[in-house]
Amino acid sequence: MLIDPSLSNQKRQPGLVVWLTGLSGSGKTTIAIEVEKRLFVRQIPVYRLDGDVLRQGLNADLGFSPAGRKENIRRAAEVARLFENAGLILLASFISPQRSMREFARSLVPEGAFIEVYVQASLETCIQRDPKGNYQRALAGKIPNYTGIDQEYEEPVNPELVLNTEKLPISACAARLVDEIDNRMTVLKQRKNEEG
Amino acid sequence: MLIDPSLSNQKRQPGLVVWLTGLSGSGKTTIAIEVEKRLFVRQIPVYRLDGDVLRQGLNADLGFSPAGRKENIRRAAEVARLFENAGLILLASFISPQRSMREFARSLVPEGAFIEVYVQASLETCIQRDPKGNYQRALAGKIPNYTGIDQEYEEPVNPELVLNTEKLPISACAARLVDEIDNRMTVLKQRKNEEG
Repeated sequence: MLIDPSLSNQKRQPGLVVWLTGLSGSGKTTIAIEVEKRLFVRQIPVYRLDGDVLRQGLNADLGFSPAGRKENIRRAAEVARLFENAGLILLASFISPQRSMREFARSLVPEGAFIEVYVQASLETCIQRDPKGNYQRALAGKIPNYTGIDQEYEEPVNPELVLNTEKLPISACAARLVDEIDNRMTVLKQRKNEEG
Repeated sequence: MLIDPSLSNQKRQPGLVVWLTGLSGSGKTTIAIEVEKRLFVRQIPVYRLDGDVLRQGLNADLGFSPAGRKENIRRAAEVARLFENAGLILLASFISPQRSMREFARSLVPEGAFIEVYVQASLETCIQRDPKGNYQRALAGKIPNYTGIDQEYEEPVNPELVLNTEKLPISACAARLVDEIDNRMTVLKQRKNEEG
């Protein structure tokens, strides 16, 4: 499912989309930053995206209505696809509460080039952490459609990995995810070599 | 102007946006493909974007009205910024007829990390080449707002490079652009080392 099967794209290293989903405050970006560092020191091409970054630029025109949130994830998935196509490991941290949107993101990249990571923490814990103060604002009615408060979070049914940040420290979560990425990259590279 | 000045981003290789502008049929993508190959064999991280690729995915929701075309370029510029931030050389081929949009794209990346390339060919030549048959359709009134036909192309005032594809073969255009990229990357790396 390469967008642009030019000669050079076909010879590229395989890319990978690592999609971290979970409630706000569950630890998605914290884990992604730690994983990024660990891959980076090994000189593996890696980049990281999250909602805050995209809403500063590409998605600055979008609001927080259900339609705006859906379009936010659609564009994130399309950008992730481009990075995968470019041969990078793309760490995407998005609440992405709807299964359908996560399945859409998966559908954009070649079979196997997508890892869904459920970053799990109870709503109570996330409200307690509330790193951006958003739960407080949502509970006060100041942010509508907030996931966990007045929008449902649809738990992943069959994610490649579940990381429970109430039970495991961040460093252990990151280590598990790096292992998962390494294993997957081995498979993808093997397939690429067999094809090439 | 890093979006996300994380530790790993600051240590990355500098990225570069190479923005190829010019009429449809001027040779932007043909040059970009050749440059991509030449950089790729040297193992330089490079990726290529153009309007056709983006309109298959990220920009599939956009039409060809003036507003749709402007939003197409805005998103292209924002995606280019992400690739620059990721430390890649991003070759962006977009007619991008308005100076203001090209200046917007330039404004998103750090000083020096943007090369504007004017791929020049006369309208008569482009109409004669008409690789996609679009000029024929536009002249028949079937594509509105087509650049060169019923929308003005604003020539670059001070581009880093002009490549005239009526006077120079593609291989020579590509060679000149690779030289320009190499020179610019030398400066950017030097600056990064001095900062770091």
